[in-house]
Amino acid sequence: MDERLKKQMEFLLEIDKSKQIGRQTYLADASRKENDAEHAWHLGMMAILLSEYANENINLLKVISMVLVHDLVEIDAGDTYAYDDQGQKTKYEREHTAADRIFGILPQDQELKLRQLWEEFEEWKTPEAKFAHTLDNFQPVLLNDAADGKAWREHAVRSSQVYERNRRTGEGSEKLYAYLDTMIQKNIEAGNIRSDHELL
Amino acid sequence: MDERLKKQMEFLLEIDKSKQIGRQTYLADASRKENDAEHAWHLGMMAILLSEYANENINLLKVISMVLVHDLVEIDAGDTYAYDDQGQKTKYEREHTAADRIFGILPQDQELKLRQLWEEFEEWKTPEAKFAHTLDNFQPVLLNDAADGKAWREHAVRSSQVYERNRRTGEGSEKLYAYLDTMIQKNIEAGNIRSDHELL
Repeated sequence: MDERLKKQMEFLLEIDKSKQIGRQTYLADASRKENDAEHAWHLGMMAILLSEYANENINLLKVISMVLVHDLVEIDAGDTYAYDDQGQKTKYEREHTAADRIFGILPQDQELKLRQLWEEFEEWKTPEAKFAHTLDNFQPVLLNDAADGKAWREHAVRSSQVYERNRRTGEGSEKLYAYLDTMIQKNIEAGNIRSDHELL
Repeated sequence: MDERLKKQMEFLLEIDKSKQIGRQTYLADASRKENDAEHAWHLGMMAILLSEYANENINLLKVISMVLVHDLVEIDAGDTYAYDDQGQKTKYEREHTAADRIFGILPQDQELKLRQLWEEFEEWKTPEAKFAHTLDNFQPVLLNDAADGKAWREHAVRSSQVYERNRRTGEGSEKLYAYLDTMIQKNIEAGNIRSDHELL
């Protein structure tokens, strides 16, 4: 087998581990938590179906590729829960070290391509990166809402945390952010997300 | 919420069930079997990385969309194991009934778009459909090989069955078929796939 194909196969087997990287979000039926591969697939489907709501013109192939790739670094770095403040502090370094190793398995041109795609997502500047982040933030809220707020309740998440987490979600799609807001409000009213007001 | 967005959300929650549709293929480390959502994500990554091996020019966005969507009908129809001859007989009707219901949740234009994408895959005629099938056939062999043939051994799969299953795999990519063939041969020699010759 040639060297290029060998590296590609090695990478495809390495990223199989994404199926075992657990997230904090429950499936819609609340039966178990989802993993990174499932999450990425779901975002890909959302990109296909919801691109009409992007604030700016987007290259759909780039968005889909971005969401399929965006969590690969978690194979080494693990999933850092959105509301884990300690974990968030070390996330940057952990994920960049992971990117070096994981993307480094690929032939150099493809390493560069996927690395750039991931960096673009992380930099959150281009229309595609903004929309990909909108989907990445929207999907767990959609699932948490369907699962009657189970993950929020388990972590005693406060409304200020959810809004801080979604501070930039509207940059990719005002329309989807508006819908996300209705889901958050509904879950504050249902007591699934703790209102900060109540804490005072 | 407007009717269109409501249908899209309903569909996105419905397809969450793909994460619970089990396949017969084990993960590369043989720890458990994978599900449809994980499989579809893996094919999407393969499309991104292996499109250079397609026999014909392909529209990559179409291939990725096709592989992300191709197994949604299994939410109702279930996964039909490649070597389940009885199941294969009823597969067509079960999957088409499923497509009516599942894609039917979407707004009409998107129902049509996804339905056409799935039908195109099933018809196996266009360059994109041929390449998507190559990936769909290649991925379980790659994983089975990594898992030391566990799924093949459990089902006592014969070499003639594997070759019959992969009769058209080369239509999408001769290069990937040639590599698949080396994996099959290796697993026949290792006794993971039963040689038909031995049965005589």
